[in-house]
Amino acid sequence: MSEKNSNTKHIIILGGGFAGLWAAKEFGKKDGYQVTVIDRNNYHLFQPLLYQVASAGLEPEQISYPLRGTFRKMLNVEFRMAEVTGLDLEKKVLLSDVGPIHYDGLIIALGSVTSYFGVPGAEEFAFSLKNAEEAIDIRNHILSCFEYAQYEPDPAIREQLLTFTVVGGGPTGVEYAGALAELVHTSLRRDFRGLNKEDVKIKLIEGEDGPLNGYPDKLRYYAKNKLEKLGVHGCYKQHVVQVEADKVTLKSGETISTRTVLWTAGIRGNKVAEEMGLPLGRANRIITKPELNLAEHPEVFVAGDIALPMDEEKMLSGPTVAPNAIQQGVLAAKNLMSLFEGKKLTPFSYFDKGSLATIGRSSAVVHLGKLKITGFFAWVTWLIIHLLYLIGFRNRVIVFINWAFEYLLFERGVRLIMPKAKDTIPHGKADEYEPEGTEGKALNKRSVDKKEP
Amino acid sequence: MSEKNSNTKHIIILGGGFAGLWAAKEFGKKDGYQVTVIDRNNYHLFQPLLYQVASAGLEPEQISYPLRGTFRKMLNVEFRMAEVTGLDLEKKVLLSDVGPIHYDGLIIALGSVTSYFGVPGAEEFAFSLKNAEEAIDIRNHILSCFEYAQYEPDPAIREQLLTFTVVGGGPTGVEYAGALAELVHTSLRRDFRGLNKEDVKIKLIEGEDGPLNGYPDKLRYYAKNKLEKLGVHGCYKQHVVQVEADKVTLKSGETISTRTVLWTAGIRGNKVAEEMGLPLGRANRIITKPELNLAEHPEVFVAGDIALPMDEEKMLSGPTVAPNAIQQGVLAAKNLMSLFEGKKLTPFSYFDKGSLATIGRSSAVVHLGKLKITGFFAWVTWLIIHLLYLIGFRNRVIVFINWAFEYLLFERGVRLIMPKAKDTIPHGKADEYEPEGTEGKALNKRSVDKKEP
Repeated sequence: MSEKNSNTKHIIILGGGFAGLWAAKEFGKKDGYQVTVIDRNNYHLFQPLLYQVASAGLEPEQISYPLRGTFRKMLNVEFRMAEVTGLDLEKKVLLSDVGPIHYDGLIIALGSVTSYFGVPGAEEFAFSLKNAEEAIDIRNHILSCFEYAQYEPDPAIREQLLTFTVVGGGPTGVEYAGALAELVHTSLRRDFRGLNKEDVKIKLIEGEDGPLNGYPDKLRYYAKNKLEKLGVHGCYKQHVVQVEADKVTLKSGETISTRTVLWTAGIRGNKVAEEMGLPLGRANRIITKPELNLAEHPEVFVAGDIALPMDEEKMLSGPTVAPNAIQQGVLAAKNLMSLFEGKKLTPFSYFDKGSLATIGRSSAVVHLGKLKITGFFAWVTWLIIHLLYLIGFRNRVIVFINWAFEYLLFERGVRLIMPKAKDTIPHGKADEYEPEGTEGKALNKRSVDKKEP
Repeated sequence: MSEKNSNTKHIIILGGGFAGLWAAKEFGKKDGYQVTVIDRNNYHLFQPLLYQVASAGLEPEQISYPLRGTFRKMLNVEFRMAEVTGLDLEKKVLLSDVGPIHYDGLIIALGSVTSYFGVPGAEEFAFSLKNAEEAIDIRNHILSCFEYAQYEPDPAIREQLLTFTVVGGGPTGVEYAGALAELVHTSLRRDFRGLNKEDVKIKLIEGEDGPLNGYPDKLRYYAKNKLEKLGVHGCYKQHVVQVEADKVTLKSGETISTRTVLWTAGIRGNKVAEEMGLPLGRANRIITKPELNLAEHPEVFVAGDIALPMDEEKMLSGPTVAPNAIQQGVLAAKNLMSLFEGKKLTPFSYFDKGSLATIGRSSAVVHLGKLKITGFFAWVTWLIIHLLYLIGFRNRVIVFINWAFEYLLFERGVRLIMPKAKDTIPHGKADEYEPEGTEGKALNKRSVDKKEP
């Protein structure tokens, strides 16, 4: 930044998600600002399609775009891959694993993590679906469950391996349960010949009386029916009270034998924010003024899932979805510029662009203003909106091709256990051929090169 | 296998690479055989394009195809994901981590691993390029080197981070060095504005007097020139004598400061075979009769990189490339059937279909019989052959689209550090903004949730 003149303000944007990226784009058009975007990953991840990675429909690379690629044409925006380690609000210095960085203005857009509400065992045994690594883990785990179930002699373990539990009936839970049901009953049924439809159970656990709480009743009813038709067993008006390695216990006392629990029931602000000593509200989100900045430090703005803008007692944020994050990212950037330019700041108000969720093949629910549509047309709307918001032309083309294959062939392409980590699933020593005892020339398992087939 | 009648022979094929897959296809057409293919991965990997994964050109999922998908239509072939742990040749029992399995006939097609020839430090510090995990590791490592080099204040460390060393001038080494040079000088130059062409060094170390030893001189000369034009510095007639974390020492005494050493200089039989107590020859490959089976156990065949068929003192195997593996896999299957049917077995002889290697954009060398071609036409030949052998129509379409984008836009799409493991690169605390010491409110780095941005 040797070339920057003394009037140039240095802005740091923490996080390259929807809020951070759209904030950066605002600055990319303006003179007088030098912007550094910091993220621990070198890419923007399109989270709304993450559930398709976890259900073997898309490659994770296809919903990710290198942040440096996005900023190539914005000569005043640079990217740094770094992890945030602290914040000195008084000195205006951000601390990171690549050193301290001074800022004139800061936008915190660190996003959210999964909240387990303190349910015992949930953090340890349940899967979360918030980043690429977690989505890959879930895909690998589910495919491995099928691999091992096929030869598992113990029916109890086999049942655990083939029962998949989704906690939370919001859009993510509904979309994932639908995608998983389709994966199982199309591709995997053909892959695993010995598998009966009845062997596989998918459970959706939700506290309300049905899925998609907050959506109009017509759409909720449609989604509930559609999930049932796909073979998803809804456990409504239920809460999880404990998660263990091989089962889930509900408030009613009922237990579900399962090795797979996907937790989509709640989010909370990223933990990094907690340790920065910022004012936290509900779900550990950072409380801001209506203009999205901190009362004590007006040059610090917060946007996206981690922001909790409050007007007295009234929460101004929309739901924690991409449009809310984008709107807050844009406003935070504009207000930060207004601050430096001595102009009046604008309070945030969420503009509801509508909400939509897909429930498997050719069916979705879309709620846009007074419009409430379901079925094929809603599904096409869903597809188009997601393709448009996906970043990168190559990604759009390849995602479209994957969807076309999936639609035409009832097939999921990415049924790959890759990259392979340690086996997380204890499996029996199933055998159908054993001739006379197991006293073969056994090798020490440790000594076998684990990297090769 | 309860339905199999007593005449049905149970065949085990170890490994789902080229040799194993083509062997299985032979049995897929025949009655009287029940086949189990065993691999630790649930997919076939198209190794000839692995170097493009390691150079951010292709997603690993696109050169992989689920083995269960391949065997869907072969009702007598089943797949089991398992790791081999031992072999009882007398009892005809294979031991695996999912239990012992009896066989009537066995085809060992476990492939090869990288051989470091005992060079000190090579196994510890050099990268190998033999499976998907290793290719992803290399991609992540190289992109990380650029991320950290940009802000590295120490010029010596910066030089190490931006010097990339490829050991071995065979087709893999040549193709990777060419692809890496193009990645650096197209996509990454645009991503990293501060980077000068001279800052990045790519070294190719080869014991012979030039690349592609064994190819006709005309093609070797072309390849050598082409690599030079791409900015690859050839260190010919040189051997590596030591690899350390930050440097490579050559036989001449010269050292190269580098954090990246990719070892393509040699292969050896998979270590699992060593522990099975089978007769091993050069490079720990399993010595077989000319008909590809063991002298002592004629029902055990060996095919692919791991096989070393010997006719007295003469080695019958071709080079360790895909066509050799395919030919051996097919013959092993046919000979195994002949054995059971009391027919005469056929000795192996390698049919040389030619050899080819690409050296970056629009250029390749192709040697087919008397035909020796270079340049654009050779490159198109290379593209077509690789697309044809790639398994899965979806994969072919998506690889073709990726290549088209790369060709038209001089761009590599997969510049993603994903999935993110621990940082392997020690990096300095570079800082350009440091205001007055680093005494900010530092957090304990360990306590920050490493999973989130």
